[in-house]
Amino acid sequence: MTGDILAECGTLKAPVLIVHGGAGEFDRQRSPAQINRIGEGLEGALEAGWRVLGDGGPALEAVVGAVAFLEASGDFNAGRGAVATSEGSVETDAAVMEGTTGRVGGICAASWPESPVRAALAVMELGGPRSGPVLLAGAGADRFCEASGLAQRDPARLTGEGVAPISRNGTVGAVALDASGHLAAATSTGGRLGKLPGRVGDSPIVGAGTWADDASVAVSATGEGESFLVAGFAHKLAWALAAGADLESALRRALSSVRDCGGHGGAIVLAPDGRYAVAFDTLAMARAWRATGISTVRPIWPDDSL
Amino acid sequence: MTGDILAECGTLKAPVLIVHGGAGEFDRQRSPAQINRIGEGLEGALEAGWRVLGDGGPALEAVVGAVAFLEASGDFNAGRGAVATSEGSVETDAAVMEGTTGRVGGICAASWPESPVRAALAVMELGGPRSGPVLLAGAGADRFCEASGLAQRDPARLTGEGVAPISRNGTVGAVALDASGHLAAATSTGGRLGKLPGRVGDSPIVGAGTWADDASVAVSATGEGESFLVAGFAHKLAWALAAGADLESALRRALSSVRDCGGHGGAIVLAPDGRYAVAFDTLAMARAWRATGISTVRPIWPDDSL
Repeated sequence: MTGDILAECGTLKAPVLIVHGGAGEFDRQRSPAQINRIGEGLEGALEAGWRVLGDGGPALEAVVGAVAFLEASGDFNAGRGAVATSEGSVETDAAVMEGTTGRVGGICAASWPESPVRAALAVMELGGPRSGPVLLAGAGADRFCEASGLAQRDPARLTGEGVAPISRNGTVGAVALDASGHLAAATSTGGRLGKLPGRVGDSPIVGAGTWADDASVAVSATGEGESFLVAGFAHKLAWALAAGADLESALRRALSSVRDCGGHGGAIVLAPDGRYAVAFDTLAMARAWRATGISTVRPIWPDDSL
Repeated sequence: MTGDILAECGTLKAPVLIVHGGAGEFDRQRSPAQINRIGEGLEGALEAGWRVLGDGGPALEAVVGAVAFLEASGDFNAGRGAVATSEGSVETDAAVMEGTTGRVGGICAASWPESPVRAALAVMELGGPRSGPVLLAGAGADRFCEASGLAQRDPARLTGEGVAPISRNGTVGAVALDASGHLAAATSTGGRLGKLPGRVGDSPIVGAGTWADDASVAVSATGEGESFLVAGFAHKLAWALAAGADLESALRRALSSVRDCGGHGGAIVLAPDGRYAVAFDTLAMARAWRATGISTVRPIWPDDSL
């Protein structure tokens, strides 16, 4: 575990899409073939989101499309690739937030949905701005998904069997800035490998692992969830930016506060003026970003070679 | 719904215990007999917590004892008195946090425990500081409670039948400062009456409805949970105090940010130097506090008479 926080920062012209496939120590175990698959997944997620953004579509639809692609790939710890709990079951967490309206939706400890991020979107759409539930858990979340007509996870994959170690640290997420200047964020995860059933981390909790607000920032985090949750990571970052802080230093401070809570990880961050930052204090973080004329895919650290 | 935030503030010498039995509009519907029962509940909670604090015992044990008393009374929307979901089931949320260590535990959408706050404490005790789960949801939380030997809710009360409207707004909570200068906080609720099964509000989420940190503040909130959760209410308050803000004005600002998210409610707050505040922007909030030589019980607003 490195003690440093590594950050890549810059400014891009809207629309912008950033995706991640988790932060962790997994690069030590990965083969070149596995890293290739991660890179392909990130590239596919950029394409899925860009089909929306490039046509002038909304940031919300772009982040959901990008995250749903990563969930469906099976190569990350989210959706089809979600790792198993200590009992061999699969329980997924996800959240989505729309920066324009402040609407947010999340699910946690949910086994039903094939695409947890689409389930989170359905929770968000239950209410208007400032009304309706923002988080559904467990059996209630599953029954809501079924009643909403969301696709069910393939039961053959319910046990998490056949999921390669490649997926262990692969929480996925996306942030986007659309041509209209609106932000959105989404995060999806299977949680910690071998977790106690029912365990919930930061990903589905608004202000912890996921946040979007047109007045400040869109962010999706990955790492040791309990620490991001106790630290209030995304809220801390958003409030610092709303108060005028510099993007990179605010992100470094927020990640330091996560470390003060005992955890490590990383995040992707995008401001309404196109400033972006990716930062992590783990060995590796799979991440990629795209704007007009620019497409960068980094499945590992420090670069794309082993 | 009043537009003003009403605040009671002061300074008390440690040990100090503050409890609440929910904020809302319920006073319009309450009989004098019901208000008496609320007052008796608050008084019993103060006594339960004071048996610990008065003997020099720890804040953590005091807040758990006080909240467990309110849960067991059946007169509040927590524990035995928890209201029913839209399907007639009972699903409870609770959290507890220890200011000295930063350890935190929570359960959400849990049907098993007779005392949800004791279940949250058991989650907290799973890990040491900075390790282990901090939140368990749904069936996993229930199985954990059963495996931990925690008392099961009386199945005859599982449907929430026979719960009077008195309980509708009665989330309960406690904050304490012990003779050693340590803080703790606990919150417990049945959630919104008629809620969608699986719905989770702010109470069990660290930094939303519950927070304790010896360096800043202990807080327990009550009200429209989605707004407290999106606002990051407790984190916002704690960070303002850690930055040196005045207790009352920081609390007013944090409640205003909840209102900006569309919700109303209140909170009890206690600082390590004995400053305390109770504030709410609803018609009523049931609250009480005790320190050496002082015991104040206010089941309604503006005073104890109808």
